[in-house]
Amino acid sequence: MSIASMIEAIGMEAKKAARELRQLRRDRKDAALELMARKLMENHEALINENHKDLTSAHKAGLSPAMIDRLTLDSPGIEGMAEGLREVAALPDPVGEVTRMWTRPNGLRVGKTRIPLGVIGFIYESRPNVTVDAASLCLKSGNAVILKGGSEAIHSNIFLAGLLQEALEETGLPRNAVQVIPSTDREAVGILLGLEDLVDIIIPRGGEGLIRFVTSRSRIPVLKHYKGVCHVYVDRYADLKMAEEICFNAKVQRPGVCNAMETMLVHEGIAGEFLPRMIARFHEAGVELRGCPKTVAFAPDILPAAEDDWPREFLGLVLAVKIVSSMDEALDHIAQYGSNHTEAIVTDDYRNAQRFLAEVDSSVVLVNASTRFNDGNQLGLGAEIGINTSKLHAFGPMGLEELTTTKFIVYGQGQIRQ
Amino acid sequence: MSIASMIEAIGMEAKKAARELRQLRRDRKDAALELMARKLMENHEALINENHKDLTSAHKAGLSPAMIDRLTLDSPGIEGMAEGLREVAALPDPVGEVTRMWTRPNGLRVGKTRIPLGVIGFIYESRPNVTVDAASLCLKSGNAVILKGGSEAIHSNIFLAGLLQEALEETGLPRNAVQVIPSTDREAVGILLGLEDLVDIIIPRGGEGLIRFVTSRSRIPVLKHYKGVCHVYVDRYADLKMAEEICFNAKVQRPGVCNAMETMLVHEGIAGEFLPRMIARFHEAGVELRGCPKTVAFAPDILPAAEDDWPREFLGLVLAVKIVSSMDEALDHIAQYGSNHTEAIVTDDYRNAQRFLAEVDSSVVLVNASTRFNDGNQLGLGAEIGINTSKLHAFGPMGLEELTTTKFIVYGQGQIRQ
Repeated sequence: MSIASMIEAIGMEAKKAARELRQLRRDRKDAALELMARKLMENHEALINENHKDLTSAHKAGLSPAMIDRLTLDSPGIEGMAEGLREVAALPDPVGEVTRMWTRPNGLRVGKTRIPLGVIGFIYESRPNVTVDAASLCLKSGNAVILKGGSEAIHSNIFLAGLLQEALEETGLPRNAVQVIPSTDREAVGILLGLEDLVDIIIPRGGEGLIRFVTSRSRIPVLKHYKGVCHVYVDRYADLKMAEEICFNAKVQRPGVCNAMETMLVHEGIAGEFLPRMIARFHEAGVELRGCPKTVAFAPDILPAAEDDWPREFLGLVLAVKIVSSMDEALDHIAQYGSNHTEAIVTDDYRNAQRFLAEVDSSVVLVNASTRFNDGNQLGLGAEIGINTSKLHAFGPMGLEELTTTKFIVYGQGQIRQ
Repeated sequence: MSIASMIEAIGMEAKKAARELRQLRRDRKDAALELMARKLMENHEALINENHKDLTSAHKAGLSPAMIDRLTLDSPGIEGMAEGLREVAALPDPVGEVTRMWTRPNGLRVGKTRIPLGVIGFIYESRPNVTVDAASLCLKSGNAVILKGGSEAIHSNIFLAGLLQEALEETGLPRNAVQVIPSTDREAVGILLGLEDLVDIIIPRGGEGLIRFVTSRSRIPVLKHYKGVCHVYVDRYADLKMAEEICFNAKVQRPGVCNAMETMLVHEGIAGEFLPRMIARFHEAGVELRGCPKTVAFAPDILPAAEDDWPREFLGLVLAVKIVSSMDEALDHIAQYGSNHTEAIVTDDYRNAQRFLAEVDSSVVLVNASTRFNDGNQLGLGAEIGINTSKLHAFGPMGLEELTTTKFIVYGQGQIRQ
């Protein structure tokens, strides 16, 4: 069988499974998730053995220590996956919720009810635990999923998918609700992206390169973000101690993630008081600063920022700093260089807080809190499958509810159109 | 200026206007809509003159009488457009609604608030009144719109856009909130579809050919339906008089539209009683029937349906008829041949009604009512800009609310991530 016909067969099986999944009651989905967790724990050793095959190839291929670290499955990691499955089982089922219902003058009762999207294609890199996370969220939300992981994790992913499918079968659910594409062929992604009649939505997770590749090739709608160029604006009326804690947290707590701060905007009215303390603290933490001309004039040991530092996601301990003469200048800067991901203002001024919330066109806009809170768990959605910065469907972090859509249901008593 | 740079300039102006529109209060948008209505009435004669230019070209080009009819603007048509503008002004503004708000254990207050999508590209055929309808819905929902109408309506559309822009300017709104691409160049659509950094969403409205062309070329998400292959299933437990009225209405009241019935599925248990009356009524109304073998065995004067009649949108007085031996067979038929648009069941059986509502994967599913109710106005959404049968964003008829998305807003008191 060619790779194209294999992947098409996977798509057809997924579509078939999706029709069954749509109607599944919550208790049956939860039972499968619980059994998956047990199977992970029971097959712990075999899983580590399979993961070793991937790690051996990774060492041979000379992958970076960071990538090898992300690829490695150990006992706490496996327990974490099992715990994640149990947490998803405990979350409410979004499917079937009637979000609104009203009665028309002619007596028609019209409602909107949540339904699964159908078949989700999930394309991701190295971490094998993502296989289990994505499968659990898709199953709970009633969607079939086709998983295409990185070739470096192929043994781990195939073994994991086998366990998940066993659990599905043993609880009477369609085995093909979760499928891994068992191939490292680079063509596989392109073929999956062409199955527009079988796959409803594509979610890629990984570096900007992977996501741009997927988006440019896909004929299926893609929910994704390219990067997070997140800003914190320290207003003239900020509580400066609070601003210091928030900016430090936003940059330093976990600098390699999409919701970390990349540019700090500081109102010139408080720059003299705020910047020296803040700069000292960043220096101490090893953060490299790149400043606008005003910032450099202020602290001559700071490197000048280049034009391409402003739209950049450093993904590490580097921060661009700009002094602005007004909130308008801050808003203009964000509109020009931001990525519609996450922006925060620190202020005690009522009007500036409300204006920032209204005018900033980002998926999460915060007042007096760290950008690091743009995360499904932190915002209270439960687990998330990713963050979407396209405006369509679900702008921001996507939890179970965001993996559904709504259809209209109409209860009539014989109404016809006049 | 080349056509490409002209359209790119239009896109850039739209994006600039969208940033202003996002923050506009309802009263200012409504004032512009009301003034647009007055300007249409005041410029009534000039508009009819411009429309005559289009009609003259249409006659020369030998357009069909149906197309010329759709292109024609007369006094009642212009009054209808003005009335439509006033109706949109009277609808609630979806922007700014906080749809949910909750507090996290750490005190963060997290909410979801409605925001406009941004810039909408609207691509459509002949009817110039659609120019005004689409512009009004986009403006009210806070979106900038780029309109690309058919070349046959170019004079009418340019003149209409001029009036709308005058009204925008005179009420202090950005003139480029509404722009018509003033070109009949066929390349224009392709160029518009490539502006992925400037346009957030594409809505095409017209025949299946136009929509397939747009979808295959677009790098921007497209909300659309290709066709409506709508089914009515007359259950074994149907009230047969009600079924007759609903099926007749669904097929005959306006056969050329997407929510008309194309296939009637009849349970064999009541076919003997139901079909003779129904067939006689359809014959009387000039409906051509195409039947499955069982139907033909039943009424030998009916033509046999070909395989390609089942997935077909006849858009006229033709109906496919199939006798099914169970509700499962009806559901399978719909899953195989349906277009996820609109399906109805006629039944007095509680379980069959609930099962049909749950299992049919269409944007609107009805019990004991005509398929013709899949329409934003009829369902109570107010005016609609189109019907979407892709699952993403807004499955079904799209009114003002469906032209928005939500972003997260977070009110903190200095929270940082642990």
